[in-house]
Amino acid sequence: MVFLTKNNSAHKIFLKEAIIEAKKGLREKGIPIGSVLVLNGKIIGRGHNKRIQKKSPILHAEMDCLNNAGRLKASDYKKCVIYSTLSPCEMCTGAIILYKIPTIIIGENKNFKGPEEYSKKKEIKIINLHSKECEELMSGFIKKNPTLWFEDIGE
Amino acid sequence: MVFLTKNNSAHKIFLKEAIIEAKKGLREKGIPIGSVLVLNGKIIGRGHNKRIQKKSPILHAEMDCLNNAGRLKASDYKKCVIYSTLSPCEMCTGAIILYKIPTIIIGENKNFKGPEEYSKKKEIKIINLHSKECEELMSGFIKKNPTLWFEDIGE
Repeated sequence: MVFLTKNNSAHKIFLKEAIIEAKKGLREKGIPIGSVLVLNGKIIGRGHNKRIQKKSPILHAEMDCLNNAGRLKASDYKKCVIYSTLSPCEMCTGAIILYKIPTIIIGENKNFKGPEEYSKKKEIKIINLHSKECEELMSGFIKKNPTLWFEDIGE
Repeated sequence: MVFLTKNNSAHKIFLKEAIIEAKKGLREKGIPIGSVLVLNGKIIGRGHNKRIQKKSPILHAEMDCLNNAGRLKASDYKKCVIYSTLSPCEMCTGAIILYKIPTIIIGENKNFKGPEEYSKKKEIKIINLHSKECEELMSGFIKKNPTLWFEDIGE
């Protein structure tokens, strides 16, 4: 039996929204990674990986999400939580460090693990929700599209 | 008297192109930071900071430049040199690390210094050309627009 704290339940609800974004990406024939940005319990930005859709090497899910949230005050970023279905890469981690977003909630890091130790050094808290749904969404995509996936992580 | 190696001359020529981008940004009432991406001695992408112009928190000069270069092969990124009028921040450094671009040429790092030590740990070479023109372009902007500048670096 799993007892969820109030906080963990909220995290699951927001991760679900990131998964909705990831699935939207998949329907668009894109890479299924989604992200939402939450401030004071409300989603203020959402996005998904748009490498294929926009021919963009910078629109990873977290970047698209931050872009869609628009220009925020530094003081607001510091109160935000960013959710991603997958562990953020160097670029997305860099953006999170730049804006001093203190908490990252990830769906999983089995299919890819970004520089989590570096984030921790920068005093960013990372919580892995070990979502089976996120894992399967990503592993299924990678199996079918290894070339696209390796392009997305610069390999 | 300064004796330039052939390589240094090339670097100055490409940095000049990044400065042209930075000035384009300034004319658009944006933040004057420019960048070019060079592969085999040819510019394959160029861009400038578009925070103001596109209301974007992710379009720093280097990001705009990488975006404009489009989707490249990992093997091409590994042969690229990226030029920026200013030392790249955490986000832009992260993108450079992700794509394993081995060399960053910067105009200056007096007005802002990104995580250069982290880049070096990732085996990225950084060459600072100590450009007076870049320094003055940036310090002039910061003096007139401190709020915009601090927003751009998440402060």
